[in-house]
Amino acid sequence: MIIVLKPGLARRQEASILGEIRKRGYRPHVMRGVARTVIGAIGDELTHQSLETLAMVFPDLVESVIPVQKRYKFVSREAHPENSTVPVRQHFIGGKKFHVMAGPCSVESADQLLRTAEAVKAAGATVLRGGAFKPRTSPYEFQGLGEKGLKLLARARRETGLAVITELLSENHAELVAEHADIIQIGARNAQNFQLLIAAAKTGKPILLKRGLAMKIEEWLLAGEYVLANGNCNLMFCERGIRTFETYTRNTLDLSAVPIVKNESHCPVVIDPSQGAGRADLVKALCKGAVAMGADALLIEVHPNPVEAWSDGAQQVSLPVFAQLMKELRPLIAAVGRD
Amino acid sequence: MIIVLKPGLARRQEASILGEIRKRGYRPHVMRGVARTVIGAIGDELTHQSLETLAMVFPDLVESVIPVQKRYKFVSREAHPENSTVPVRQHFIGGKKFHVMAGPCSVESADQLLRTAEAVKAAGATVLRGGAFKPRTSPYEFQGLGEKGLKLLARARRETGLAVITELLSENHAELVAEHADIIQIGARNAQNFQLLIAAAKTGKPILLKRGLAMKIEEWLLAGEYVLANGNCNLMFCERGIRTFETYTRNTLDLSAVPIVKNESHCPVVIDPSQGAGRADLVKALCKGAVAMGADALLIEVHPNPVEAWSDGAQQVSLPVFAQLMKELRPLIAAVGRD
Amino acid sequence: MIIVLKPGLARRQEASILGEIRKRGYRPHVMRGVARTVIGAIGDELTHQSLETLAMVFPDLVESVIPVQKRYKFVSREAHPENSTVPVRQHFIGGKKFHVMAGPCSVESADQLLRTAEAVKAAGATVLRGGAFKPRTSPYEFQGLGEKGLKLLARARRETGLAVITELLSENHAELVAEHADIIQIGARNAQNFQLLIAAAKTGKPILLKRGLAMKIEEWLLAGEYVLANGNCNLMFCERGIRTFETYTRNTLDLSAVPIVKNESHCPVVIDPSQGAGRADLVKALCKGAVAMGADALLIEVHPNPVEAWSDGAQQVSLPVFAQLMKELRPLIAAVGRD
Amino acid sequence: MIIVLKPGLARRQEASILGEIRKRGYRPHVMRGVARTVIGAIGDELTHQSLETLAMVFPDLVESVIPVQKRYKFVSREAHPENSTVPVRQHFIGGKKFHVMAGPCSVESADQLLRTAEAVKAAGATVLRGGAFKPRTSPYEFQGLGEKGLKLLARARRETGLAVITELLSENHAELVAEHADIIQIGARNAQNFQLLIAAAKTGKPILLKRGLAMKIEEWLLAGEYVLANGNCNLMFCERGIRTFETYTRNTLDLSAVPIVKNESHCPVVIDPSQGAGRADLVKALCKGAVAMGADALLIEVHPNPVEAWSDGAQQVSLPVFAQLMKELRPLIAAVGRD
Repeated sequence: MIIVLKPGLARRQEASILGEIRKRGYRPHVMRGVARTVIGAIGDELTHQSLETLAMVFPDLVESVIPVQKRYKFVSREAHPENSTVPVRQHFIGGKKFHVMAGPCSVESADQLLRTAEAVKAAGATVLRGGAFKPRTSPYEFQGLGEKGLKLLARARRETGLAVITELLSENHAELVAEHADIIQIGARNAQNFQLLIAAAKTGKPILLKRGLAMKIEEWLLAGEYVLANGNCNLMFCERGIRTFETYTRNTLDLSAVPIVKNESHCPVVIDPSQGAGRADLVKALCKGAVAMGADALLIEVHPNPVEAWSDGAQQVSLPVFAQLMKELRPLIAAVGRD
Repeated sequence: MIIVLKPGLARRQEASILGEIRKRGYRPHVMRGVARTVIGAIGDELTHQSLETLAMVFPDLVESVIPVQKRYKFVSREAHPENSTVPVRQHFIGGKKFHVMAGPCSVESADQLLRTAEAVKAAGATVLRGGAFKPRTSPYEFQGLGEKGLKLLARARRETGLAVITELLSENHAELVAEHADIIQIGARNAQNFQLLIAAAKTGKPILLKRGLAMKIEEWLLAGEYVLANGNCNLMFCERGIRTFETYTRNTLDLSAVPIVKNESHCPVVIDPSQGAGRADLVKALCKGAVAMGADALLIEVHPNPVEAWSDGAQQVSLPVFAQLMKELRPLIAAVGRD
Repeated sequence: MIIVLKPGLARRQEASILGEIRKRGYRPHVMRGVARTVIGAIGDELTHQSLETLAMVFPDLVESVIPVQKRYKFVSREAHPENSTVPVRQHFIGGKKFHVMAGPCSVESADQLLRTAEAVKAAGATVLRGGAFKPRTSPYEFQGLGEKGLKLLARARRETGLAVITELLSENHAELVAEHADIIQIGARNAQNFQLLIAAAKTGKPILLKRGLAMKIEEWLLAGEYVLANGNCNLMFCERGIRTFETYTRNTLDLSAVPIVKNESHCPVVIDPSQGAGRADLVKALCKGAVAMGADALLIEVHPNPVEAWSDGAQQVSLPVFAQLMKELRPLIAAVGRD
Repeated sequence: MIIVLKPGLARRQEASILGEIRKRGYRPHVMRGVARTVIGAIGDELTHQSLETLAMVFPDLVESVIPVQKRYKFVSREAHPENSTVPVRQHFIGGKKFHVMAGPCSVESADQLLRTAEAVKAAGATVLRGGAFKPRTSPYEFQGLGEKGLKLLARARRETGLAVITELLSENHAELVAEHADIIQIGARNAQNFQLLIAAAKTGKPILLKRGLAMKIEEWLLAGEYVLANGNCNLMFCERGIRTFETYTRNTLDLSAVPIVKNESHCPVVIDPSQGAGRADLVKALCKGAVAMGADALLIEVHPNPVEAWSDGAQQVSLPVFAQLMKELRPLIAAVGRD
């Protein structure tokens, strides 16, 4: 930790700060600069008590306190310099092969789900997405088919061989969801619901962690740290748009998250352009950007009849649009050296 | 719903949109303007399927779809024109009397909690706050004393007569927390954890719902609607800062939320200046603003020794600072006609 | 315009609103819905006085007022369905050929500029960028070489045949800058400095308009409308990052601006990844995303020795990194069907 | 400056960084911590070249570079520990007396301006505001009466004795505006138009500098530094709302700017609640908050007939509402010890 002192302190005042630093187990190291005196507090920031309170408790003496260590450990690329790959049935996400996860926002019926599953498989997707438990902004909106939806997903898997990803909303459903899904999705609204993250991690299933609407990259990585620190190393990060002032799109998809998370972490990065924009007409361009920037997979909402969708129809693409999109992605996937 | 058509459509194209509107149970009403044709779709937006997908599914025909009804019902001032008051032991929050809830960020020990409780009571607070279950950004930070913390809060209540507010983090703890607390707090990170909101609502205890860091007022009111729609009408909204680009403060306390929520809803409004700024040196000014703007209560972090706090020391004020703050608030409370 | 009335108004109250609407030259058209009465006000919103004040002046009667027309005209794709191309010396930006504009943040010396110009030309760039007048956050930072910098740019053009783009900061320099530059850049801080936009437009030179840090797409298009409405149709829009809560990067490059501006407008779209991220290590990935998403050109900061740069060294790439980047972009440019 | 090195560097690598630091005139001081080695670079950051490029140019060696000095000087409270007061005719803004500046968004006619001036004076305002040059988002909106508006403002001053504040939009109008106004306003869109700030500063008139929509406090103070560094010490900072994701209000008024700017600077702080919210119905509550939090003055838009206003009618209050507001502010002004 670096402690910047206010200018013009008496030696006695400086000594009292040095005492506070020592009391917390750090060894202080004083540097007198031209305009400011700076103290380096030597000790492990992850195991010692933080010194950040000093600036507030001694506002007349301390100008600022700056941590120098990163706060995440297991998700960090320092801890695991190679890219990690997440095994999902016969696939590995994060390796040379680029993956597409696709399917409806909500599971609505056997017919809707199976038609979609077959179509997305034919177009080249390897994972089927579909919401059985749906977090909805209003209590009056469709909340998902629940267990019945999970069973339909499992049936679609049996019939198509696609792996299945679905969202977990409640600690109490962790076992149930893990029983039917190959990947457990933690949604943006629950990205800092740490109890849910721990429950999901403990199922042992691969976890796809969406970024919260107002989450800094560091906070997102630390939420992922909850998964790894609870013994589950099969974690993927999924960018799905952050909240900004722009109103043309529902959210602003932060594609720079791809190279940043790749820099900081070894975990695979997935892009969800459907939630990111909230507009089907932008999905194609966003997918292309994601591929070019180095994402490992896409998560795309596809519906056989978007206008009739029970939720989020505005952002779901139709089956022919999806097939066309997959075709247009191929040259880009090749251009970045992926399969 | 209002459907704005693209300019220059053929009658046949217009007819197909009219058909789609009727299919969803609305009665269409066409208005031909100078530059655009607009269709009013007459029907109850809360019970009929949304038409918002039309703009995406027919992007060449429909320019935009605009809802005209408010999406919330029970929390709305239309539903309950008078201010509602929330009974908390012998007190009523939301009435003429202004309330202050104060106490440490985390419950750490009997001594820490009881000293704080006595001091805040002496200074005029009526509710004791204290975290027993703590949501922490990093898995390596102190996560709260759990049930032991709840028991200390209950003991402090017995010894001082203060009511108790504490945060609920897990559906599985709803009964346990309700047993010890007078008000259940739902934190910002869980503000759209709807399963938690429902579990909290069903305990029957008053709920204080913090605003999520990236929550629009409308979404916050709709999250509150989950509480009322689940049979619990004792709801308070608590503004605690939204996330913006400014880095001087941890968050930006949006004090305009006070008059806005008062306009839109009948529920009491509480301001948390400690989380809002993340800096103890701004707490006093923010409290004064909140009082002047019509808040019903404050939620303030107070610690007997902030520099030693196990969490968020930088934003907790000391006991003498709190006592001085309460003194300075009195003339303002009087100036706005409160007790 | 659509006027949504409050529920439960008396006919007399409704009539007074109808009167206000007529007074402003619109013809009102009443639709009685289930929960709300809505009035369509028929008339040209671009030429009539706005009705948006009604909601504020009659808050008890009017709930909201919603415009239905787009506010921009000449920049709109409705006005010019084909892509427009901007002629810059022998080039056309916005056509099939993809363009790269590259060069130092600031012009520092003949040697620095000429070395860079030759290197970026060799790597395939067609336009040389370089700041002669620099807007700096602090008055104590280097403010650019001014006219001397412009002359160096002109010399670099003579020696290399590259076209030249440079920023205009003051109305008083419009003629001077136009004399030396092939494209006039309006920076993010001046994106709503309408006097400067008008002065730049009147020089007749092509204009590259950067998006302001907090500008909605609609406001940006309207700022561009100032250029076209002042008789200059050679306008390019340049996205260079918006301000969000994320602090890992200096700004958040909003790549979705590419398909959005392409939807709404006919003008070419340029991406500036250097300002967008403020970090040279992200430039490569952002360039790739921009190409894949359909941008017409890139604007990249390149410096022969970034660590010695007089401004913004952290975001400038070196000459070999630039050459490597250009090589890596080629397969992507081909994959999207550009030259 | 503090330079944090990557973990695990060889001594030779460390030495090369030490060399770079010395080359820029700083004296390096090495501290070996538990997880990181940190170098203090001793030297004046305001006069030496920045080291921030090191992190980008040597990404494998340097993790981050952290400045420890504040970048502003003359506006800083360190430079001038007492509050400064700005003389405006017979008044001093920033002293014990609380001031209200009020008037129409745009000057429209002699009748409109004089009626407003008389009414706001009668209610207790001391400064008349009114826009003669108006920056408008769209080129098709009313752009102000220009010089004719300035003359009407001067006439209103003669007839009422109120001081006059009006916005400066163009360097070329600096002399003209200075001739008619007592305070020159720099609007939010031009808050980093440094050429305009310099031109305004050089007139010698008091300057009111609005905060840009996406300006951090530090950047705002640095923009103010341009005024003081150009020899004009009569500067006021005016908060008028920042851009956030919330759409209920046009902007989010950041009232915490009041105590923050008071902490960091000696200059008076003014609050503009009209632009801040963009809604007349919130103006009253926001004014009360501003007074309670320690603002020195308010800037309020008042119009004799808001529904007929030529610009921004939605946020202007009527004359009786203004008079009532002034009455309600009195007890709060007294409660914070102001006149």
